[in-house]
Amino acid sequence: MSQGQEHVNLETPPKCTADFCLIPLGTPTASVSAEIAEVQRLMKRSGLKYSMHSAGTTVEGSWDDVMRLIGQAHTLLHQKGIVRIQSDIRVGSRTDKEQTMEDKVAAVEKLLAADKA
Amino acid sequence: MSQGQEHVNLETPPKCTADFCLIPLGTPTASVSAEIAEVQRLMKRSGLKYSMHSAGTTVEGSWDDVMRLIGQAHTLLHQKGIVRIQSDIRVGSRTDKEQTMEDKVAAVEKLLAADKA
Amino acid sequence: MSQGQEHVNLETPPKCTADFCLIPLGTPTASVSAEIAEVQRLMKRSGLKYSMHSAGTTVEGSWDDVMRLIGQAHTLLHQKGIVRIQSDIRVGSRTDKEQTMEDKVAAVEKLLAADKA
Amino acid sequence: MSQGQEHVNLETPPKCTADFCLIPLGTPTASVSAEIAEVQRLMKRSGLKYSMHSAGTTVEGSWDDVMRLIGQAHTLLHQKGIVRIQSDIRVGSRTDKEQTMEDKVAAVEKLLAADKA
Repeated sequence: MSQGQEHVNLETPPKCTADFCLIPLGTPTASVSAEIAEVQRLMKRSGLKYSMHSAGTTVEGSWDDVMRLIGQAHTLLHQKGIVRIQSDIRVGSRTDKEQTMEDKVAAVEKLLAADKA
Repeated sequence: MSQGQEHVNLETPPKCTADFCLIPLGTPTASVSAEIAEVQRLMKRSGLKYSMHSAGTTVEGSWDDVMRLIGQAHTLLHQKGIVRIQSDIRVGSRTDKEQTMEDKVAAVEKLLAADKA
Repeated sequence: MSQGQEHVNLETPPKCTADFCLIPLGTPTASVSAEIAEVQRLMKRSGLKYSMHSAGTTVEGSWDDVMRLIGQAHTLLHQKGIVRIQSDIRVGSRTDKEQTMEDKVAAVEKLLAADKA
Repeated sequence: MSQGQEHVNLETPPKCTADFCLIPLGTPTASVSAEIAEVQRLMKRSGLKYSMHSAGTTVEGSWDDVMRLIGQAHTLLHQKGIVRIQSDIRVGSRTDKEQTMEDKVAAVEKLLAADKA
């Protein structure tokens, strides 16, 4: 634990869902698919459950594992010469029930399906 | 045009892709699936191209159409009694080429597929 | 109104607060201060109330005015040769009371000040 | 290190700047100032450098320290009975130079000041 956090004695959430959109800055072209592919390869090696969509990548796990993995994605691209990276992360945690990324979509789709009944 | 913007004479982008995550505050329960289902019904009626995933909804169209639609989602839920709403919107525009939400995923998956070749 | 939205007849919120972080992609360097300065000049000309901080710019006004202004910021930078731009927008609307950006900070600081009393 | 991450051997960035907006869900009222005040007290105890503004809180430090602190903020509010929390985090890292939150604003303001010269 760093000097900076000696006064705080709290665990981080054992489970969270994070959706992140990573943007490399100062790259020669406006295309970022090569960088995103690198990040996807890292996701796969991580062993964490994840899903890529057109606006980001959703990943599930403990807060520490998920956040470490996104940080490692920054480091990986820094090592490949990207000097600046900005990510937008939407992260949620809840204590009332376990809910996977599939559960969230299913709950909404069940309501929508009832419209047609 | 409001008083507030009389000095700015610039169009908004003719095309953008936005991904938004809408959160109702001060609701009786922590479940938001009923509210998200309402938003999905609105998306459908809008005629704009959209796709729901576990961390938000992606929508394509002109900047004005897309932003109006997200604003209408706020109004719809306000009308149903939600007094406070916060949305996180990731929005991108580009002038170098047309790119749909499917194109973005396909570009990355093409690179990943080459890993196995 | 575009073809795409003929079925939706809802106003957008008369008031909102948005905080946006705009990122130009594919620029020669990782510095974005020149682009952000352009955006600040646009904010000033808009007549809307705004405030820059290290992680973005907060702006208040009607939903339509605020979103048009952020879209104009994209267009302005596109016109200056930036071919791709991504913004992250946090936007809130509420119907229970009027609340300015100063009000929100003041409400928290009042609670913190009471700690010392 | 968890089971889930045995294959990834990369450090996280030694320095980052994160701006987060934390939203408690399912609270009795739409006001969140009490919860945000709790988070500010935690920030203070952490020893990390931070700054609150109307749309979030900016914090500087190593990736691990910063992300742990935001996770602890979730835990703190969970312990106080908030069953669901969603945060939006904008996080940046760079390897080309050290840059504080004040540096970023100063770089833009220097450009704007030159307008008047």
